Amino acid sequence: MASPEIEALTQALSRLPGLGPRSARRAVLHLLKKRETALEPLLAALGAVSDKLSTCSICGNVDTSDPCGICADPRREGRALCVVEEVADLWALDRSRLFPGKFHVLGGRLSALDGVRPEDLAIDSLIRRIADGGIDEVVLAMNATLEGQTTAHYIAERLEQYPVRLTQLAHGLPVGGELDYLDEGTLAQALRARRPVA
Amino acid sequence: MASPEIEALTQALSRLPGLGPRSARRAVLHLLKKRETALEPLLAALGAVSDKLSTCSICGNVDTSDPCGICADPRREGRALCVVEEVADLWALDRSRLFPGKFHVLGGRLSALDGVRPEDLAIDSLIRRIADGGIDEVVLAMNATLEGQTTAHYIAERLEQYPVRLTQLAHGLPVGGELDYLDEGTLAQALRARRPVA
Repeated sequence: MASPEIEALTQALSRLPGLGPRSARRAVLHLLKKRETALEPLLAALGAVSDKLSTCSICGNVDTSDPCGICADPRREGRALCVVEEVADLWALDRSRLFPGKFHVLGGRLSALDGVRPEDLAIDSLIRRIADGGIDEVVLAMNATLEGQTTAHYIAERLEQYPVRLTQLAHGLPVGGELDYLDEGTLAQALRARRPVA
Repeated sequence: MASPEIEALTQALSRLPGLGPRSARRAVLHLLKKRETALEPLLAALGAVSDKLSTCSICGNVDTSDPCGICADPRREGRALCVVEEVADLWALDRSRLFPGKFHVLGGRLSALDGVRPEDLAIDSLIRRIADGGIDEVVLAMNATLEGQTTAHYIAERLEQYPVRLTQLAHGLPVGGELDYLDEGTLAQALRARRPVA
Protein backbone atom coordinates (compact mmCIF):
# COMPACT_ATOMS: atom_id res chain seq x y z
CA MET A 1 0.00 0.00 0.00
CA ALA A 2 1.15 3.53 -0.76
CA SER A 3 1.93 5.74 2.22
CA PRO A 4 -0.78 8.07 3.62
CA GLU A 5 1.00 11.07 2.06
CA ILE A 6 1.06 9.46 -1.39
CA GLU A 7 -2.55 8.33 -1.01
CA ALA A 8 -3.56 11.89 -0.11
CA LEU A 9 -1.75 13.27 -3.16
CA THR A 10 -3.41 10.70 -5.43
CA GLN A 11 -6.78 11.65 -3.93
CA ALA A 12 -6.19 15.37 -4.44
CA LEU A 13 -5.09 14.89 -8.06
CA SER A 14 -7.93 12.50 -8.89
CA ARG A 15 -10.40 15.26 -7.99
CA LEU A 16 -9.13 17.47 -10.80
CA PRO A 17 -11.34 17.58 -13.90
CA GLY A 18 -10.01 15.17 -16.51
CA LEU A 19 -8.09 13.00 -14.03
CA GLY A 20 -9.57 9.74 -12.71
CA PRO A 21 -8.08 7.51 -9.99
CA ARG A 22 -5.93 5.59 -12.49
CA SER A 23 -4.59 8.62 -14.35
CA ALA A 24 -4.04 10.35 -11.00
CA ARG A 25 -1.94 7.36 -9.89
CA ARG A 26 0.13 7.60 -13.06
CA ALA A 27 0.55 11.33 -12.51
CA VAL A 28 1.71 10.72 -8.92
CA LEU A 29 4.23 8.13 -10.08
CA HIS A 30 5.49 10.64 -12.65
CA LEU A 31 5.85 13.25 -9.90
CA LEU A 32 7.66 10.83 -7.57
CA LYS A 33 10.07 9.66 -10.26
CA LYS A 34 10.70 13.13 -11.69
CA ARG A 35 11.10 14.99 -8.42
CA GLU A 36 13.34 17.82 -9.66
CA THR A 37 11.67 18.34 -13.04
CA ALA A 38 8.03 17.67 -12.16
CA LEU A 39 7.21 17.58 -8.45
CA GLU A 40 9.20 20.56 -7.24
CA PRO A 41 8.16 22.87 -10.12
CA LEU A 42 4.50 21.97 -9.60
CA LEU A 43 4.83 22.52 -5.86
CA ALA A 44 6.49 25.90 -6.39
CA ALA A 45 3.90 26.96 -8.98
CA LEU A 46 1.00 25.94 -6.73
CA GLY A 47 2.57 27.74 -3.78
CA ALA A 48 3.08 30.94 -5.75
CA VAL A 49 -0.50 30.92 -7.00
CA SER A 50 -1.84 30.06 -3.55
CA ASP A 51 0.09 32.96 -2.00
CA LYS A 52 -1.23 35.55 -4.44
CA LEU A 53 -4.59 34.15 -5.51
CA SER A 54 -7.35 36.73 -5.39
CA THR A 55 -10.65 37.58 -7.03
CA CYS A 56 -10.58 40.90 -8.88
CA SER A 57 -12.71 43.39 -6.94
CA ILE A 58 -13.56 45.13 -10.22
CA CYS A 59 -14.45 42.39 -12.72
CA GLY A 60 -14.59 39.14 -10.71
CA ASN A 61 -11.73 37.49 -12.61
CA VAL A 62 -9.49 35.20 -10.57
CA ASP A 63 -5.85 36.19 -10.80
CA THR A 64 -2.71 36.60 -8.70
CA SER A 65 -3.34 40.32 -8.30
CA ASP A 66 -6.27 42.60 -7.46
CA PRO A 67 -7.16 44.43 -9.68
CA CYS A 68 -6.52 41.57 -12.10
CA GLY A 69 -4.01 41.83 -14.96
CA ILE A 70 -6.74 42.74 -17.43
CA CYS A 71 -8.35 45.48 -15.32
CA ALA A 72 -4.91 46.90 -14.52
CA ASP A 73 -3.73 46.84 -18.16
CA PRO A 74 -3.64 50.45 -19.46
CA ARG A 75 -3.51 49.23 -23.07
CA ARG A 76 -6.95 47.69 -22.58
CA GLU A 77 -9.83 49.63 -24.16
CA GLY A 78 -11.84 50.68 -21.10
CA ARG A 79 -14.86 51.92 -23.06
CA ALA A 80 -15.95 48.42 -24.11
CA LEU A 81 -17.07 45.92 -21.48
CA CYS A 82 -17.63 42.22 -22.15
CA VAL A 83 -19.98 40.47 -19.70
CA VAL A 84 -19.45 36.73 -19.27
CA GLU A 85 -20.96 34.03 -17.07
CA GLU A 86 -17.80 32.43 -15.74
CA VAL A 87 -14.09 33.09 -15.38
CA ALA A 88 -13.55 30.21 -17.84
CA ASP A 89 -15.45 32.25 -20.47
CA LEU A 90 -13.32 35.33 -19.76
CA TRP A 91 -10.18 33.25 -20.25
CA ALA A 92 -11.52 31.75 -23.46
CA LEU A 93 -12.27 35.20 -24.92
CA ASP A 94 -8.99 36.60 -23.64
CA ARG A 95 -7.05 33.73 -25.24
CA SER A 96 -8.70 34.55 -28.56
CA ARG A 97 -7.17 38.06 -28.24
CA LEU A 98 -10.10 39.46 -30.23
CA PHE A 99 -11.68 41.66 -27.59
CA PRO A 100 -9.55 44.71 -26.72
CA GLY A 101 -11.81 45.85 -23.87
CA LYS A 102 -12.37 44.80 -20.29
CA PHE A 103 -14.56 42.13 -18.76
CA HIS A 104 -17.19 41.55 -16.11
CA VAL A 105 -17.76 38.08 -14.64
CA LEU A 106 -21.31 37.38 -13.43
CA GLY A 107 -20.34 34.20 -11.61
CA GLY A 108 -23.07 32.14 -13.22
CA ARG A 109 -26.34 32.41 -15.11
CA LEU A 110 -29.94 32.96 -14.00
CA SER A 111 -31.60 29.61 -13.41
CA ALA A 112 -35.02 28.85 -11.99
CA LEU A 113 -34.00 25.19 -11.88
CA ASP A 114 -30.90 25.79 -9.75
CA GLY A 115 -32.56 28.68 -7.91
CA VAL A 116 -30.01 31.24 -9.13
CA ARG A 117 -31.55 34.73 -8.81
CA PRO A 118 -30.23 38.10 -10.04
CA GLU A 119 -28.94 38.92 -6.56
CA ASP A 120 -26.83 35.77 -6.69
CA LEU A 121 -24.88 37.13 -9.67
CA ALA A 122 -22.54 40.11 -9.95
CA ILE A 123 -25.21 42.17 -11.72
CA ASP A 124 -25.46 45.09 -9.29
CA SER A 125 -21.70 45.61 -9.52
CA LEU A 126 -22.06 45.57 -13.32
CA ILE A 127 -24.78 48.26 -13.15
CA ARG A 128 -22.51 50.32 -10.88
CA ARG A 129 -19.59 50.07 -13.32
CA ILE A 130 -21.84 51.31 -16.12
CA ALA A 131 -23.52 53.99 -13.99
CA ASP A 132 -20.06 55.33 -13.16
CA GLY A 133 -19.77 56.12 -16.88
CA GLY A 134 -16.85 55.90 -19.28
CA ILE A 135 -18.32 52.80 -20.93
CA ASP A 136 -19.78 53.05 -24.44
CA GLU A 137 -20.49 49.44 -25.29
CA VAL A 138 -21.49 46.40 -23.28
CA VAL A 139 -21.08 43.03 -25.01
CA LEU A 140 -23.37 40.41 -23.50
CA ALA A 141 -21.26 37.28 -24.07
CA MET A 142 -23.45 34.73 -22.33
CA ASN A 143 -23.47 31.11 -23.42
CA ALA A 144 -25.92 30.29 -26.22
CA THR A 145 -27.97 28.26 -23.78
CA LEU A 146 -31.52 29.00 -22.66
CA GLU A 147 -30.30 30.15 -19.25
CA GLY A 148 -27.48 32.16 -20.78
CA GLN A 149 -29.83 33.99 -23.11
CA THR A 150 -32.36 34.53 -20.32
CA THR A 151 -29.56 36.14 -18.32
CA ALA A 152 -28.61 38.31 -21.30
CA HIS A 153 -32.19 39.50 -21.74
CA TYR A 154 -32.52 40.28 -18.04
CA ILE A 155 -29.30 42.33 -18.05
CA ALA A 156 -30.36 44.09 -21.28
CA GLU A 157 -33.54 45.23 -19.53
CA ARG A 158 -31.66 46.42 -16.46
CA LEU A 159 -29.30 48.44 -18.71
CA GLU A 160 -31.95 50.01 -20.97
CA GLN A 161 -31.84 53.25 -18.98
CA TYR A 162 -28.11 53.73 -19.50
CA PRO A 163 -26.54 55.41 -22.58
CA VAL A 164 -24.51 52.38 -23.63
CA ARG A 165 -24.55 50.37 -26.83
CA LEU A 166 -25.71 46.87 -25.91
CA THR A 167 -24.43 44.11 -28.16
CA GLN A 168 -24.38 40.35 -27.99
CA LEU A 169 -22.24 37.71 -29.62
CA ALA A 170 -23.50 36.78 -33.06
CA HIS A 171 -25.08 33.39 -33.00
CA GLY A 172 -22.33 31.96 -35.01
CA LEU A 173 -21.90 29.98 -31.82
CA PRO A 174 -23.62 26.63 -32.05
CA VAL A 175 -26.84 26.68 -30.04
CA GLY A 176 -26.30 24.85 -26.78
CA GLY A 177 -22.56 25.42 -27.06
CA GLU A 178 -20.49 26.91 -24.27
CA LEU A 179 -17.80 29.55 -24.84
CA ASP A 180 -15.07 27.71 -23.05
CA TYR A 181 -15.31 24.79 -25.47
CA LEU A 182 -15.33 26.78 -28.69
CA ASP A 183 -12.44 26.98 -31.12
CA GLU A 184 -11.07 30.47 -31.54
CA GLY A 185 -12.24 30.66 -35.14
CA THR A 186 -15.87 30.37 -34.06
CA LEU A 187 -15.25 32.83 -31.24
CA ALA A 188 -13.71 35.29 -33.71
CA GLN A 189 -16.66 35.04 -36.07
CA ALA A 190 -19.17 35.45 -33.27
CA LEU A 191 -17.35 38.44 -31.82
CA ARG A 192 -16.84 40.18 -35.17
CA ALA A 193 -20.50 39.73 -36.11
CA ARG A 194 -21.83 40.96 -32.76
CA ARG A 195 -25.01 42.98 -33.23
CA PRO A 196 -27.19 45.36 -31.22
CA VAL A 197 -29.73 43.74 -28.89
CA ALA A 198 -33.07 43.75 -30.73
CA MET B 1 -3.31 36.92 -20.53
CA ALA B 2 -3.08 34.91 -17.34
CA SER B 3 -0.48 36.03 -14.82
CA PRO B 4 3.04 34.49 -14.88
CA GLU B 5 2.20 32.47 -11.76
CA ILE B 6 -0.94 31.01 -13.34
CA GLU B 7 0.91 30.38 -16.60
CA ALA B 8 3.64 28.53 -14.69
CA LEU B 9 1.05 26.40 -12.89
CA THR B 10 -0.69 25.58 -16.19
CA GLN B 11 2.69 24.63 -17.66
CA ALA B 12 3.58 22.40 -14.72
CA LEU B 13 0.23 20.62 -14.82
CA SER B 14 0.23 20.20 -18.60
CA ARG B 15 3.46 18.19 -18.26
CA LEU B 16 1.70 15.50 -16.21
CA PRO B 17 0.84 12.32 -18.14
CA GLY B 18 -2.78 12.44 -19.26
CA LEU B 19 -3.06 16.24 -19.10
CA GLY B 20 -2.69 18.38 -22.22
CA PRO B 21 -2.59 22.19 -22.35
CA ARG B 22 -6.38 22.47 -22.53
CA SER B 23 -7.17 20.03 -19.73
CA ALA B 24 -4.38 21.63 -17.68
CA ARG B 25 -6.09 24.99 -18.13
CA ARG B 26 -9.39 23.53 -16.96
CA ALA B 27 -7.64 21.95 -13.98
CA VAL B 28 -6.04 25.30 -13.09
CA LEU B 29 -9.40 27.07 -13.29
CA HIS B 30 -10.85 24.39 -11.04
CA LEU B 31 -8.01 24.95 -8.56
CA LEU B 32 -8.44 28.73 -8.65
CA LYS B 33 -12.20 28.57 -8.16
CA LYS B 34 -12.08 25.84 -5.50
CA ARG B 35 -9.22 27.24 -3.45
CA GLU B 36 -10.16 25.71 -0.08
CA THR B 37 -11.35 22.34 -1.35
CA ALA B 38 -8.93 21.77 -4.26
CA LEU B 39 -5.90 24.06 -4.38
CA GLU B 40 -4.92 24.05 -0.70
CA PRO B 41 -5.37 20.27 -0.23
CA LEU B 42 -3.30 19.58 -3.35
CA LEU B 43 -0.64 22.03 -2.19
CA ALA B 44 -0.52 20.43 1.26
CA ALA B 45 -0.40 16.90 -0.19
CA LEU B 46 2.39 17.82 -2.61
CA GLY B 47 4.33 19.52 0.17
CA ALA B 48 4.01 16.52 2.50
CA VAL B 49 5.19 14.14 -0.22
CA SER B 50 8.02 16.46 -1.27
CA ASP B 51 9.23 16.70 2.34
CA LYS B 52 9.40 12.94 2.86
CA LEU B 53 9.97 11.55 -0.63
CA SER B 54 12.73 9.00 -0.77
CA THR B 55 13.83 5.96 -2.74
CA CYS B 56 13.93 2.77 -0.67
CA SER B 57 17.57 1.79 -0.14
CA ILE B 58 16.52 -1.87 -0.01
CA CYS B 59 14.09 -2.41 -2.91
CA GLY B 60 14.17 0.81 -4.96
CA ASN B 61 10.48 1.63 -4.36
CA VAL B 62 9.64 5.33 -4.08
CA ASP B 63 7.86 6.14 -0.85
CA THR B 64 7.74 8.71 1.93
CA SER B 65 9.98 6.58 4.13
CA ASP B 66 13.21 4.61 3.77
CA PRO B 67 12.97 1.62 4.09
CA CYS B 68 9.66 1.84 2.21
CA GLY B 69 6.35 0.76 3.73
CA ILE B 70 6.57 -2.65 2.08
CA CYS B 71 10.16 -3.43 3.15
CA ALA B 72 9.37 -2.22 6.69
CA ASP B 73 6.14 -4.25 6.94
CA PRO B 74 6.74 -7.20 9.33
CA ARG B 75 3.61 -8.97 8.05
CA ARG B 76 5.25 -9.22 4.63
CA GLU B 77 6.63 -12.64 3.71
CA GLY B 78 10.35 -11.99 3.44
CA ARG B 79 11.24 -15.33 1.89
CA ALA B 80 9.60 -14.52 -1.47
CA LEU B 81 10.99 -11.70 -3.59
CA CYS B 82 9.23 -10.27 -6.65
CA VAL B 83 11.53 -8.54 -9.16
CA VAL B 84 9.89 -5.86 -11.33
CA GLU B 85 11.12 -3.41 -13.95
CA GLU B 86 9.56 -0.21 -12.64
CA VAL B 87 7.99 1.21 -9.50
CA ALA B 88 4.73 1.38 -11.47
CA ASP B 89 4.83 -2.42 -11.77
CA LEU B 90 5.47 -2.81 -8.04
CA TRP B 91 2.43 -0.62 -7.33
CA ALA B 92 0.29 -2.58 -9.79
CA LEU B 93 1.18 -5.90 -8.13
CA ASP B 94 0.83 -4.41 -4.66
CA ARG B 95 -2.65 -3.07 -5.51
CA SER B 96 -3.68 -6.57 -6.59
CA ARG B 97 -2.81 -7.70 -3.02
CA LEU B 98 -1.92 -11.14 -4.39
CA PHE B 99 1.78 -11.23 -3.61
CA PRO B 100 2.53 -11.49 0.12
CA GLY B 101 6.29 -11.11 -0.27
CA LYS B 102 8.66 -8.24 -0.87
CA PHE B 103 9.82 -6.55 -4.05
CA HIS B 104 12.92 -5.47 -5.93
CA VAL B 105 12.76 -2.68 -8.53
CA LEU B 106 15.32 -2.93 -11.35
CA GLY B 107 14.64 0.58 -12.61
CA GLY B 108 14.18 -0.50 -16.20
CA ARG B 109 14.85 -3.37 -18.59
CA LEU B 110 17.90 -4.41 -20.59
CA SER B 111 17.79 -2.76 -23.99
CA ALA B 112 20.40 -2.76 -26.74
CA LEU B 113 18.31 -0.15 -28.53
CA ASP B 114 18.28 2.30 -25.60
CA GLY B 115 21.76 1.24 -24.52
CA VAL B 116 20.60 -0.03 -21.12
CA ARG B 117 23.21 -2.46 -19.76
CA PRO B 118 23.08 -4.72 -16.67
CA GLU B 119 25.12 -2.21 -14.67
CA ASP B 120 22.45 0.43 -15.39
CA LEU B 121 19.86 -1.65 -13.51
CA ALA B 122 19.61 -2.58 -9.82
CA ILE B 123 20.79 -6.11 -10.55
CA ASP B 124 23.92 -6.21 -8.35
CA SER B 125 21.85 -5.09 -5.35
CA LEU B 126 19.38 -7.88 -6.19
CA ILE B 127 22.20 -10.45 -6.25
CA ARG B 128 23.43 -9.11 -2.90
CA ARG B 129 19.95 -9.43 -1.34
CA ILE B 130 19.80 -13.05 -2.48
CA ALA B 131 23.40 -13.81 -1.52
CA ASP B 132 22.61 -12.53 1.98
CA GLY B 133 20.21 -15.47 2.20
CA GLY B 134 16.76 -15.80 3.76
CA ILE B 135 15.07 -15.82 0.34
CA ASP B 136 13.54 -19.05 -1.01
CA GLU B 137 11.78 -17.84 -4.15
CA VAL B 138 12.45 -15.10 -6.66
CA VAL B 139 9.54 -14.20 -8.95
CA LEU B 140 10.76 -12.61 -12.17
CA ALA B 141 7.82 -10.30 -12.94
CA MET B 142 9.15 -8.53 -16.01
CA ASN B 143 6.82 -7.23 -18.68
CA ALA B 144 5.92 -9.74 -21.39
CA THR B 145 7.91 -7.71 -23.89
CA LEU B 146 11.04 -8.85 -25.71
CA GLU B 147 13.23 -6.62 -23.56
CA GLY B 148 11.42 -7.65 -20.38
CA GLN B 149 11.92 -11.33 -21.13
CA THR B 150 15.55 -10.75 -22.13
CA THR B 151 16.06 -9.10 -18.75
CA ALA B 152 14.37 -12.04 -17.00
CA HIS B 153 16.62 -14.56 -18.78
CA TYR B 154 19.72 -12.52 -17.92
CA ILE B 155 18.78 -12.36 -14.24
CA ALA B 156 17.89 -16.09 -14.23
CA GLU B 157 21.42 -16.86 -15.44
CA ARG B 158 22.98 -14.60 -12.83
CA LEU B 159 20.97 -16.36 -10.11
CA GLU B 160 21.58 -19.95 -11.22
CA GLN B 161 24.33 -20.41 -8.62
CA TYR B 162 22.05 -19.48 -5.71
CA PRO B 163 19.73 -21.93 -3.92
CA VAL B 164 16.51 -20.06 -4.71
CA ARG B 165 13.42 -21.16 -6.60
CA LEU B 166 13.20 -19.00 -9.71
CA THR B 167 9.70 -18.43 -11.06
CA GLN B 168 8.18 -16.13 -13.60
CA LEU B 169 4.68 -14.84 -14.17
CA ALA B 170 2.62 -17.25 -16.25
CA HIS B 171 2.07 -15.90 -19.70
CA GLY B 172 -1.53 -15.33 -19.03
CA LEU B 173 -0.44 -11.77 -19.60
CA PRO B 174 -1.06 -10.72 -23.16
CA VAL B 175 2.20 -10.66 -25.12
CA GLY B 176 3.38 -7.09 -25.46
CA GLY B 177 1.25 -6.08 -22.50
CA GLU B 178 2.68 -4.13 -19.56
CA LEU B 179 1.89 -4.96 -15.92
CA ASP B 180 0.80 -1.49 -14.98
CA TYR B 181 -2.04 -1.59 -17.53
CA LEU B 182 -3.42 -5.03 -16.67
CA ASP B 183 -6.66 -5.65 -14.82
CA GLU B 184 -6.22 -7.43 -11.50
CA GLY B 185 -7.98 -10.54 -12.78
CA THR B 186 -5.27 -11.07 -15.36
CA LEU B 187 -2.58 -10.27 -12.81
CA ALA B 188 -4.10 -12.77 -10.38
CA GLN B 189 -4.16 -15.54 -13.00
CA ALA B 190 -0.60 -14.85 -14.09
CA LEU B 191 0.66 -14.80 -10.51
CA ARG B 192 -1.20 -17.96 -9.46
CA ALA B 193 0.06 -19.87 -12.52
CA ARG B 194 3.68 -18.77 -12.07
CA ARG B 195 6.06 -21.61 -12.97
CA PRO B 196 9.74 -22.49 -12.60
CA VAL B 197 12.09 -20.95 -15.14
CA ALA B 198 12.73 -23.63 -17.83
